[in-house]
Parts: sequence; C-alpha cells; structure tokens
Amino acid sequence: MTNPTAAMLVIGDEILSGRTRDSNMHHLAGQLTERGITLAEVRVVADDQPAIVAAVNALRAGFDHVFTSGGIGPTHDDITADAMAVAFGVAITHRADAMALLGAHYARQGLEFNAARQRMARIPDGAVLIDNPVSIAPGFSLGNVHVMAGVPRIFEAMVAGVLAGITGGAPLLSRTLRVERGEGDIATAFSDFAAGYPDLAMGSYPFNMNGSFGTNLVLRGTDAARLDAAHAALTALLMP
Amino acid sequence: MTNPTAAMLVIGDEILSGRTRDSNMHHLAGQLTERGITLAEVRVVADDQPAIVAAVNALRAGFDHVFTSGGIGPTHDDITADAMAVAFGVAITHRADAMALLGAHYARQGLEFNAARQRMARIPDGAVLIDNPVSIAPGFSLGNVHVMAGVPRIFEAMVAGVLAGITGGAPLLSRTLRVERGEGDIATAFSDFAAGYPDLAMGSYPFNMNGSFGTNLVLRGTDAARLDAAHAALTALLMP
Repeated sequence: MTNPTAAMLVIGDEILSGRTRDSNMHHLAGQLTERGITLAEVRVVADDQPAIVAAVNALRAGFDHVFTSGGIGPTHDDITADAMAVAFGVAITHRADAMALLGAHYARQGLEFNAARQRMARIPDGAVLIDNPVSIAPGFSLGNVHVMAGVPRIFEAMVAGVLAGITGGAPLLSRTLRVERGEGDIATAFSDFAAGYPDLAMGSYPFNMNGSFGTNLVLRGTDAARLDAAHAALTALLMP
Repeated sequence: MTNPTAAMLVIGDEILSGRTRDSNMHHLAGQLTERGITLAEVRVVADDQPAIVAAVNALRAGFDHVFTSGGIGPTHDDITADAMAVAFGVAITHRADAMALLGAHYARQGLEFNAARQRMARIPDGAVLIDNPVSIAPGFSLGNVHVMAGVPRIFEAMVAGVLAGITGGAPLLSRTLRVERGEGDIATAFSDFAAGYPDLAMGSYPFNMNGSFGTNLVLRGTDAARLDAAHAALTALLMP
C-alpha cells in the first residue's frame, strides 16, 4: 500500500519579491509527514491568473491532494478563488452560506459588510467550505484542491480542519545518527549501507559547528522496528 | 525594457519531509529583487531524478535564469549534477579543473581525496564552474541554469558569485503604508486607487497586533519618484 501523495501551491508576489518569508510550507510538510501523506512537490507562483491556473491544473492531475495558500482575502490582489474557478471551468458566485457566515460575523463586530468583505464569500460552484475559526472568511475544497488563507495562523487552522477529513497512510518515521566526521569521510560507507536497505530512504546532511565538521545521517521509513534495526547497524558500522 | 525573469528549483527530501526549513528561497528572492531580476516561480522537488529533470527542463524553457539549490555533495542522495546532465542530454565526467581544486584542498587539510569526495568533481560537459569560497566543492552553470549547494552559507556565497556576472534590470523598489484598519475596511478604496496606477503593483497584507487589525499596503515598481507620488496620494486618501 503506497501512501497518498500531495503537492502545495503557494500564491503570492510577497513571497517571490522577498518581502515575506513563507512559513506555511514547513508547517504543511511536517503535518503531512505525520499523517503518512507524501509531499512530493511545492510550487510558488505570483498573483497572476495564468500562472495560478497552469500550476494548479498540473498539480491536481499529478497528485492525490493539492494544498494552496494565499490570495483569498478582500482586496484586488486576492485572485485565487477566481483562478480556481477558471482552472476547473466552473462558475463562481457569492454563495449564500458563506454570505450568511460573514454577514453574521461583521454584524457581531458592528462592522459594515461591504462589497470588499462580500468578495470573500465568492466560492466556485461545487466547492465544500473549509472552516476558518480565526477570522471566519472560509477556504474551500474543490475536487482534490484545498484552497486556504496565507496568514499563517489561519492557514494552520484550516490545514487541521482539512486533514481531519483526509485518510492518510503510514506515518513517515525517521531516525538520525549524528557523527562528528565530515560527509566526505563517511559517504562511501553510508552509500554502501543504504544500498542494503532499499525500503528505507537515507539522507546525509552536513553541518559545521564551532569550526568542526559533522554529518547528520537520517533514515526514513514507515516501519519503526526496521528503522531501529538499521539505526543500530549504522551506529555499529560508523561508531564502533 | 522588461526585467529578466528567473525561477528557482529547490532540491531535497529534507525540505519536503519538514525536517529542514528552507531559507535559500527567501535569500535568493531578496537578492534578485535588488538586482532587477523578477523571480517568477519556485519549485521544490525530492531527490528523484525524473522529478528534477522534468522541473529543470520546464523552468529553463520558461525563464531567463534558473537557480537550483541542493544535492551536489559527496553522498549517494546527491544526484543533482547527474540529473542536470540528463536534462541537457550531455555527458558528465570527473573534470580535471574541479579535481585539481578539490585535490589541493584535501591535501592542505591532510584528508584523503577519496572516491566520495571525487564525486563532487563530476561536472556535466559544457558547464562553467561556480566558485565555492566556503568549502571549495564547486557549483556550475550549464546554459541558463545555475547549480548551487543547499547549505545556506555556501548557497549565499555562490549566489553572490553568479549574480556578479549577470546583467539585471531596474531594481524593484517598494513603499509601504501601514494603516491601523482592517483589510476589509479599505479594500474598495485601495482597489480603485490601484486601478489608477497600472504601472505599479500594489498588494495588501493584513496583520494582527495585540488584538487589533491593521494592513500593510505595499506599492512596488522601478521608478522611485512615481512610487513616492503614489505613496503620498495613498496616504492622503486613507489617512486624511
């Protein structure tokens, strides 16, 4: 049984211009790994309809799930919902349930439910709303694409809601062996060792601390006993 | 005159599994913006040859420059150089100048220049080496693709070297107006305002500080005087 696959699409000029440092990718990656969903690709595109449409159509055809962040607010640069409607070839309207949610929210706050705020109730036909416990304006799932806000606190709450409804696979586990030797010293032995465990993924990550080189060797797989055995064997090999 | 365009390709299982938080994208984005090169797309793929080949071939056909990070070390999971050779349909060999650089480096350190370390001298035919002032093992430019290390300190040094040899365009400048009002309050006025400046890109970024909502309105363009005029006009409009 293979784990489900996923891709992420980050939408926003502010990431590509270097103004904002994205943190949603790292959050989603950790959440998916815990639930046994393999994040296979991430793309970041600008607030540009053709770029968004091309990316989401490529990713939704290639992976079981696509998670997007950004571009669903009330301003003119928030074009994600319209781009999704174009990508799926469906209409987009001010949906009654989203209008009701937002209308009640602004009434409670004594704020005007103006045209800009009503824009956040524009939902492509056939979508299922994603709850926003932080600021009400909903995300939505359309087919296998989950469209969420870019503000990290809202994105994270929406991810939790979406993942509660998705069946994952076997969580990807890891074991790390830290060795106080440079990568080049142990690369051949590690490579030969890895070849004996085709069911595990093994990676090597060099570091430099206080001027001395070291390497973190990371073993990844879904079988804890198998990982523990490999970790013990690697320890015996490199730190005899 | 339009500015040159660029894409980035981040290569590494460790980013997609959530083990490592990528910082190279944010660094490159800032550097390119300063030099008037438009970063239009970023992709992150796993240590998987078909995925790397497909991504780099799509990106190098679509943009003026492609910058890659990751996968050029001495271990078996470092497959970027071979993937680039496959993508370009060229041979890859242990190149004499790279062998000489690395051989001298390890001799100075009294370390064995073993097969794993020699692997870092494998360079696709026709490439130009990128200097690595940190740990010697070079990156390379092949056509419009610049292949660099994933370790941030090395990546940053290589980016500086590559950018010194690339002609940029007019640097993308920005002005920010911080308003202590929610995005939905000002969205319509801001959108109408933006429509009057088709030569500037305008984005709206909500924030929440100590429980109160505010919005950063960011104006971007290449003409400082035009930006200053727009910023003054927007200030007069929203903070009269």
